[in-house]
Amino acid sequence: MIIMALNCGSSSVKYQLFDWDKKVVVAKGMVERVIVGDSYIVHEVPGRDNYKLEQDCPDHRAAIDLVIRTVTDRECGVLQSVAEISAVGHRVVHGGEKFTCSVRIDDDVLNAVKDVQHLAPLHNPPNIEGIEAARALMPAIPHVAIFDTAFHQTMPEHAFLYPVPYDWYENHGVRRYGFHGTSHLYVSKRAAMLLGKPAEQCNIITMHIGNGVSHCAIKGGVSVDTTMGLTPLEGAVMGTRSGDIDPAIPAFMMQKENLSAKEIDSVLNKKSGILGITGRYTDRRDVIEHAAKGDHRCQLALDIEAYRLKKYIGAYMAAIGKLDAVVFTAGVGEMGAAIREKAIEGLEHIGIHLDRERNAGAMTRKRESLITTDDSPVKVYVIPTDEELVFTEDVVAILNGTYTDHMQFEYSFAKPDFVRT
Amino acid sequence: MIIMALNCGSSSVKYQLFDWDKKVVVAKGMVERVIVGDSYIVHEVPGRDNYKLEQDCPDHRAAIDLVIRTVTDRECGVLQSVAEISAVGHRVVHGGEKFTCSVRIDDDVLNAVKDVQHLAPLHNPPNIEGIEAARALMPAIPHVAIFDTAFHQTMPEHAFLYPVPYDWYENHGVRRYGFHGTSHLYVSKRAAMLLGKPAEQCNIITMHIGNGVSHCAIKGGVSVDTTMGLTPLEGAVMGTRSGDIDPAIPAFMMQKENLSAKEIDSVLNKKSGILGITGRYTDRRDVIEHAAKGDHRCQLALDIEAYRLKKYIGAYMAAIGKLDAVVFTAGVGEMGAAIREKAIEGLEHIGIHLDRERNAGAMTRKRESLITTDDSPVKVYVIPTDEELVFTEDVVAILNGTYTDHMQFEYSFAKPDFVRT
Ligand SMILES: Nc1ncnc2c1ncn2[C@@H]1O[C@H](COP(=O)(O)OP(=O)(O)O)[C@@H](O)[C@H]1O
Ligand SMILES: Nc1ncnc2c1ncn2[C@@H]1O[C@H](COP(=O)(O)OP(=O)(O)O)[C@@H](O)[C@H]1O
Repeated sequence: MIIMALNCGSSSVKYQLFDWDKKVVVAKGMVERVIVGDSYIVHEVPGRDNYKLEQDCPDHRAAIDLVIRTVTDRECGVLQSVAEISAVGHRVVHGGEKFTCSVRIDDDVLNAVKDVQHLAPLHNPPNIEGIEAARALMPAIPHVAIFDTAFHQTMPEHAFLYPVPYDWYENHGVRRYGFHGTSHLYVSKRAAMLLGKPAEQCNIITMHIGNGVSHCAIKGGVSVDTTMGLTPLEGAVMGTRSGDIDPAIPAFMMQKENLSAKEIDSVLNKKSGILGITGRYTDRRDVIEHAAKGDHRCQLALDIEAYRLKKYIGAYMAAIGKLDAVVFTAGVGEMGAAIREKAIEGLEHIGIHLDRERNAGAMTRKRESLITTDDSPVKVYVIPTDEELVFTEDVVAILNGTYTDHMQFEYSFAKPDFVRT
Repeated sequence: MIIMALNCGSSSVKYQLFDWDKKVVVAKGMVERVIVGDSYIVHEVPGRDNYKLEQDCPDHRAAIDLVIRTVTDRECGVLQSVAEISAVGHRVVHGGEKFTCSVRIDDDVLNAVKDVQHLAPLHNPPNIEGIEAARALMPAIPHVAIFDTAFHQTMPEHAFLYPVPYDWYENHGVRRYGFHGTSHLYVSKRAAMLLGKPAEQCNIITMHIGNGVSHCAIKGGVSVDTTMGLTPLEGAVMGTRSGDIDPAIPAFMMQKENLSAKEIDSVLNKKSGILGITGRYTDRRDVIEHAAKGDHRCQLALDIEAYRLKKYIGAYMAAIGKLDAVVFTAGVGEMGAAIREKAIEGLEHIGIHLDRERNAGAMTRKRESLITTDDSPVKVYVIPTDEELVFTEDVVAILNGTYTDHMQFEYSFAKPDFVRT
């Protein structure tokens, strides 16, 4: 059984084909510069050279069509025909309050996703286009929606409501939703495995630190708070997003520099965060390199990022109660040993004892590592995330009729015999 | 020696006369509705009935003139003549980065305060008017400025810089300043006394919870972080201010409801916080009363407020390192036992063991109380604040030439023989 995972962004389409019987990724890739022009596909098959083809894709349908032709191509493909694909899992960024778990897509579901697209005007429209195109191109098979927000729908009201006029919630859906749900789900279930306890008995803080960054407070296996909010702008410092700032700053700067609401939103999303502080870089490798060479603003960016990570660990430790583990994941979380060290050092008084050597040794996207000392009351793990595997398992379980929701369902990666491929 | 403390708001003038030799407040009061019309003074002298007089005050000068006439009035006054006042301490909300401690006011100082008034357009202009009027009316005596921001000027760069374009800091002064400095100073020095250690050896979190709310992380006696930022809007939930929210919300709501930058700023400052959640109340007594009667949104307001206090305690505990004490102060901090309990309960794993009975008994603005158990590793105190006493002591020390700054200077209330009057 081959499952396709699709992730349609504003100008890109990412895909993965997973062979469920053999439990291996058979191909993955990405079409870039969709709509904007000069588009091309990069197609990766384990054990072969990457394949790249330039081809005009004026819309998402053309891009998905290119993906299908590529994966079924006689030369570079991996399938005889598109009929070998049993189902497609679509990443949908915003599920509003309607979707608390993954669902099979029908017209009602699609309409419900459209109903909340005003909450994610940059993300949901391409997700919707991708779904419509894929359903048109592969009408015979089931399509499933996996929501970034679904994992966080267990948050209590006091964590998700903002102290703003209540009718903003009633009329415009202004509340904390949270994102990166599949990543927080995956690494928290893996951490429970490593802790040797059922997820329902684990209190965990998960720190997803990639270009986008969000943290999640997980109590008894379910999300009780997360740093991203109505939009993915809130919370930690990100590559180009500010994260938490004085909410008076947008209006202050609009007046100082005569910016519109759209323009200030764009600066806070695209020119802030690590890029805003350093003035030049978003990739932490560049920042680390130039900080080492004495660039003060690069050093500052690292200090600010790590300091804010530290504060969120403390905040969520207070929120959750007795804590079992902290998990670092995604690009910076998995590879950024220096940033992890800065974030965790000096937390012995709240039960976190870093093992510097273990931490320095944990710089791979392939292995799970413990980076605290053996007697640290709170464990800290580095766990490479695997969002596509969650997509795939949700799709398979929905196909098989065994899916309930992310709390009840027993994922393969939550079982002791799981081997990462 | 009589010291006058003056606090000029947009439509009010608060004053206090302190007899430094006898260490007692001889009179205090407030002129309300200055400029807006129907103004009146309420004048309080210990041991006498309050005195109220309606009198038109079209500007701050008229209001300060009314204060002087009242305190020297033959019937209700306490002084023979204005010449008995040795000096005036003026509250100035925003000192920008220029002022790290209190200073004697001359023209240069006044100009420097004017230079940063764009950072506090609601607060600094009336402060400046008050200074100018008081200097004109009492030209022979020294005037001293005490800044809300000065105490926080010890914050390190990684705590005060925002992850936004760096030139916003260089060109517009966008950074965290913090407010309520004199209150955090007073209660932290008192807490050090109660802990029996020099302030320089104490790590303390101070929680000022009145209508405005701010918390401060104090390490080795100095402020290293605080919740209010560029403006007093950031941080904790307040009576009518939102505190922390997704920074995308202002632009989102401006577009949804067609609001200007000024209008959104006004909603976030005046219609949000406890008022926004409940739709009706700002005073926590009303909120507690109606929550008890089953009003869901009142219960929610209390839950949100307490939950966010709890998270900041954790965040600052992570930021500071080993913690000695948490201090609650101001209206809600001193009187709101139920809110304190909700904020502190469940923090045993990070060393805070609440004593419920002690906490319930600490509901007075006159006495200092310990509200944790005797063996709690971290102590929690309720300490009534006294900002005017800080004003007075800074003025006296500047008059005497003994003032250095708030870290070095030995305040009377930081000495073992201090008795609150
Ligand atoms: N060796 C490294 N040290 C520090 N950061 C790294 C390292 N390798 C990759 N990164 C960071 O990982 C980020 C990308 O993370 P990733 O999770 O792949 O991104 P995305 O959020 O786009 O999925 C890059 O911006 C880079 O800063
Ligand atoms: N018994 C009480 N329980 C809870 N809150 C109280 C109580 N008494 C006063 N308060 C709160 O204290 C607040 C005022 O605090 P205060 O520090 O005097 O205000 P300000 O910030 O204006 O100086 C009021 O809004 C009220 O909510």
